[in-house]
Amino acid sequence: MRHRVIFQPSGRRGEVEDGKTLREAAIELGVGIEQVCGGNRVCGKCKVQIQEGYFAKFDVRSSMKNLSPMSEEELRHLKDGEVENNFRLACAARIHGDVLVFVPEESRVGGQIVRKAAGEISVELDPAVRKYYVELPRPSLEDPEGDYERLLRALKEQHGLENLSIDYPALKALPQVLREGKWKVTVAVWQGREIIKVEPGYNERTLGIAFDVGTTTVVGYLTDISTGEVLAIDSMMNPQVSFGEDVMARITYAMEHEDGLRRMHEAIIGGINKIVSNLCEKAKVSSDEILELVLVGNTAMHHIYLNIYPEYLGVSPFTPALHRSIDVKARDLKIKAAPGANVHVLPIEAGFVGADNMGVVVALEPEKKDEVHLIIDIGTNGEIVLGNREKLLSTSCATGPAFEGAQITHGMRAAPGAIERVRIDPETKEPRYKVIGKEEWSDEVKSEARGICGSGIIEVVAEMFKAGIIKNSGVFNMKLETPRLRRGENNQPEYVLAWAEETAIGKDITVTQSDVRAVQLAKGALYTGCKILMKRYGVSEVDRVVLAGAFGSYIDKEASMVIGMFPDCDLSKVVAVGNAAGDGARIALLNRRKREEANRVARRIKYIELTVDPDFQTEFMQAMYFPHMKDKFPHIQHILDRIPK
Amino acid sequence: MRHRVIFQPSGRRGEVEDGKTLREAAIELGVGIEQVCGGNRVCGKCKVQIQEGYFAKFDVRSSMKNLSPMSEEELRHLKDGEVENNFRLACAARIHGDVLVFVPEESRVGGQIVRKAAGEISVELDPAVRKYYVELPRPSLEDPEGDYERLLRALKEQHGLENLSIDYPALKALPQVLREGKWKVTVAVWQGREIIKVEPGYNERTLGIAFDVGTTTVVGYLTDISTGEVLAIDSMMNPQVSFGEDVMARITYAMEHEDGLRRMHEAIIGGINKIVSNLCEKAKVSSDEILELVLVGNTAMHHIYLNIYPEYLGVSPFTPALHRSIDVKARDLKIKAAPGANVHVLPIEAGFVGADNMGVVVALEPEKKDEVHLIIDIGTNGEIVLGNREKLLSTSCATGPAFEGAQITHGMRAAPGAIERVRIDPETKEPRYKVIGKEEWSDEVKSEARGICGSGIIEVVAEMFKAGIIKNSGVFNMKLETPRLRRGENNQPEYVLAWAEETAIGKDITVTQSDVRAVQLAKGALYTGCKILMKRYGVSEVDRVVLAGAFGSYIDKEASMVIGMFPDCDLSKVVAVGNAAGDGARIALLNRRKREEANRVARRIKYIELTVDPDFQTEFMQAMYFPHMKDKFPHIQHILDRIPK
Repeated sequence: MRHRVIFQPSGRRGEVEDGKTLREAAIELGVGIEQVCGGNRVCGKCKVQIQEGYFAKFDVRSSMKNLSPMSEEELRHLKDGEVENNFRLACAARIHGDVLVFVPEESRVGGQIVRKAAGEISVELDPAVRKYYVELPRPSLEDPEGDYERLLRALKEQHGLENLSIDYPALKALPQVLREGKWKVTVAVWQGREIIKVEPGYNERTLGIAFDVGTTTVVGYLTDISTGEVLAIDSMMNPQVSFGEDVMARITYAMEHEDGLRRMHEAIIGGINKIVSNLCEKAKVSSDEILELVLVGNTAMHHIYLNIYPEYLGVSPFTPALHRSIDVKARDLKIKAAPGANVHVLPIEAGFVGADNMGVVVALEPEKKDEVHLIIDIGTNGEIVLGNREKLLSTSCATGPAFEGAQITHGMRAAPGAIERVRIDPETKEPRYKVIGKEEWSDEVKSEARGICGSGIIEVVAEMFKAGIIKNSGVFNMKLETPRLRRGENNQPEYVLAWAEETAIGKDITVTQSDVRAVQLAKGALYTGCKILMKRYGVSEVDRVVLAGAFGSYIDKEASMVIGMFPDCDLSKVVAVGNAAGDGARIALLNRRKREEANRVARRIKYIELTVDPDFQTEFMQAMYFPHMKDKFPHIQHILDRIPK
Repeated sequence: MRHRVIFQPSGRRGEVEDGKTLREAAIELGVGIEQVCGGNRVCGKCKVQIQEGYFAKFDVRSSMKNLSPMSEEELRHLKDGEVENNFRLACAARIHGDVLVFVPEESRVGGQIVRKAAGEISVELDPAVRKYYVELPRPSLEDPEGDYERLLRALKEQHGLENLSIDYPALKALPQVLREGKWKVTVAVWQGREIIKVEPGYNERTLGIAFDVGTTTVVGYLTDISTGEVLAIDSMMNPQVSFGEDVMARITYAMEHEDGLRRMHEAIIGGINKIVSNLCEKAKVSSDEILELVLVGNTAMHHIYLNIYPEYLGVSPFTPALHRSIDVKARDLKIKAAPGANVHVLPIEAGFVGADNMGVVVALEPEKKDEVHLIIDIGTNGEIVLGNREKLLSTSCATGPAFEGAQITHGMRAAPGAIERVRIDPETKEPRYKVIGKEEWSDEVKSEARGICGSGIIEVVAEMFKAGIIKNSGVFNMKLETPRLRRGENNQPEYVLAWAEETAIGKDITVTQSDVRAVQLAKGALYTGCKILMKRYGVSEVDRVVLAGAFGSYIDKEASMVIGMFPDCDLSKVVAVGNAAGDGARIALLNRRKREEANRVARRIKYIELTVDPDFQTEFMQAMYFPHMKDKFPHIQHILDRIPK
């Protein structure tokens, strides 16, 4: 028996054998559905929504049940609301009748726009791995010296290299490689001291990957480290997300489950290896050519990808296992690369200020500047560095995933259909907005919006505040007369940003009271971190604000200051630098002296634990207001003055 | 249904369920049968001989077939003659009727006497791994430094150690170990620069294993390297024996089989791990405590245990993959030890003169002496070093396994029942002999001999020559009137060393013409090697002869000179040092400066390839004679003069 299956939005359709999974059907019909685990019901990345032919709850309008019953594994991966909305895992649901399936953006292969794009970075090329081509004299009875000694002799004579050692896998392959290359070989040397690979013939290409392992997103940049050229970029959701949304949840998971660390470690290594495979496929290279990797991540990610218990990070005095950078053989971490490849892990500071923040510092070099920098790396975990060449302080704060579009009613990741820009008319309260993937704003074209991404959330909240729709306490002004302001589910106030008919999802896209609260908590945490660092540093204002992070370059500077993400500052001194953590990883991949600098700077940065500061509670409470309960914002006072009372 | 099973020689018996394997029966009845592979029909070490209840060939006297039919796997492991003699693998043969089973000495657990005993060695203790006990201040909010940095600080303050790195497995475990030890830990540091293990509390014991990997025998010495004390010794037959008896056969196997190297590599690593387990069991320690290993072996063994293709060793110009020593993580070789343990492989010289010979040189230090040393390491592969502080030459020669008791009609390894000493009356041609395991000679007690071991073979051949039973050409003098001289199988002359009734095997133990030929080939190869080295060195005599090797200390010096194993020399200057290769490995385990010396000396030793010497054929032909066709032996001329014409 065969059944008719249609996949949306691609519209691909066909007849499929009874009993096949939706994933198998998708593969047959050429529909790309994301999956990390190979259809083993482990990663939960292949979520699809069944639009016809199946209802999770019995419904009088239809009793069609054209799919296999919901499985345990699916329930574990599906979030609240998803079961009710007929979400299933494509790898688990089996087809027993006709179905219409919607593949959401997150589940679509290649659907996500990589916001952590590879910006231009300027760094002198001095990579940890360099290649040397040598030609060796053939051995003879007069010169029967061993292969390795012969190679060393050639490297010394032809390149002046001395005091080299050889990594075991390179040695193991040496006799055949030398003979296969007819005694002409290319030698990869790590840190000028260890031979990590010998290849037959000439091959100057030297591949490395810089990884930015975020709490929510993992990005890899495949790079030819002999030229600096980025050959491919790939990203995915951190597979650990199923163990908890934020770092505290992950640490708790490790503490509460016997094999929690192992499972999370294997999940992230699996994710990294998936990205390695994708990058290699995109660039048409073999993973065997990858000779060096750099990993950055916050302290919790750092410990988990190194398979080190993270629990002591989560309890006072918040001690990490190590601060300094470390090099580990990729094979010891089971990361797919050349057998002799090394993984360089950038140093971490303390508590939750990790190697990713060091990536930011490596990229921005505040330790070399006179101006006092306030660097805010915005992610699920906010990390702040304050200072200049005189001193550097750092802290971290739990912002939650609101700024990444998660835990927001219509939040989504930065992908086509996401609302990223918003303007609200202060008189009419009518909005205009722009979605990713369209050039025109919503007043010129049907938006086909699907949701709101992080930068869109900041803008819409700032605009709602500026238009008087919400008060400085975040409370909705329900006295306003506009159809866009109403009470939705649970009698909760909400503002309709897009009407159902203009969207691609067929329902109104709204911003609810709880969405505004989530933004208040996130921005309040960041503001409090900035404020306490400044107090400890002894400054009342900073010379420069740098917004870094996944969507740093997409944030509207004015909107973020209007909601009070950070203290007042001359707007012209606020810069958004995009994914500086990734940039730092890429810099460390291309220049090994920068790694030493990172170690030196890391030792200089003093970590401030926010939660033990006596002012923390008061500061946090006041910082929840837009832009703040008490603090003045002279640089945007003209904007605040225009807000209708 | 149950069947009666009796195991000999222990006499253990009992009734066993139908269908059980002989191995299962042996375990039930408390009979120790050797096995490496855990009953998986892989190692072939559990050979037993069925004495009643089974005949491999149909026999009119009995059609009893009380075992399962011969399997493919068994046929692969059983050698010529074994099938006919009713040998089976205990792990494969299933019991379907009463059987009487003989467990040969080689298959008996613990049956073999370790001849490579741990002699006293004198060496200054300076091991590569040292332990340091430290107490760390607990972290606090005022001192939140990371665990690793905290440990480094304590090691510096309390022991003056600086510039340390840490091996990844040690780092991975650090947070828990520190807390489990309540901030008091013992740190194992390798070569003064790498932390390889951290243990909670105080533990000064520092375990290492020295391995001598011979072509035929593998021996391991478990040692507390902080005291030099040998805690346990274990040995076994090299599991690679099933791939070929000597090094050329092994190299050929690697060349002719796609996965030949892998199989031999896995076999020896399996054997090493079996010895590690046995040693740990004997000494009641965990393999996790083993922090350093030293491996010595000839060049072919060296390449195979490092998983390096050995084929180029076997063809001109006989180039090894490397000469110098190398340290490899035990985990990279999959050797069972602490995760951070290192394996130190002694340097090799060239061709077949390998790390085992360097072990001899390390132990004997000819490079520091004025006297010209002739060091002969006798094994399946003979290795010779000649020289003093001025220069050192080396060579190797294919002696074959005759001196290890193999390929000799009644040859056996040095084990209880092996004839090790022989005297033949020149008048009556009647022998007296002594077997291992009995204090008395055969004229005082029933010998219960089982065969002849290496030292016994040298003695019996020397005595037969001295008594005129064989001529200097090796040919039997069949004119002698003694019942001990007769023609045996294939009309071949043979000398009866022990009559059936005095043995434990119920048949005559003889020395045949082909046994004498095997000794001639072996001793001729050694003599030729010595002679050509001396010619190249420019000496006509040496100051000192050192006999090393598995059974070196058991060889009768006079007998070996009488048969002409090496050129004439003052007998008082001939010393037998036993297993010097093992001693060298143990010295390198206890003193790391000796390793550097070994590298320096290895570079100084010039390897001479015998087979390309123009005089080789002539020399070898002449050296086949007892003691030699032409060369004079003034120091034993008085003995030669007494030989009956």
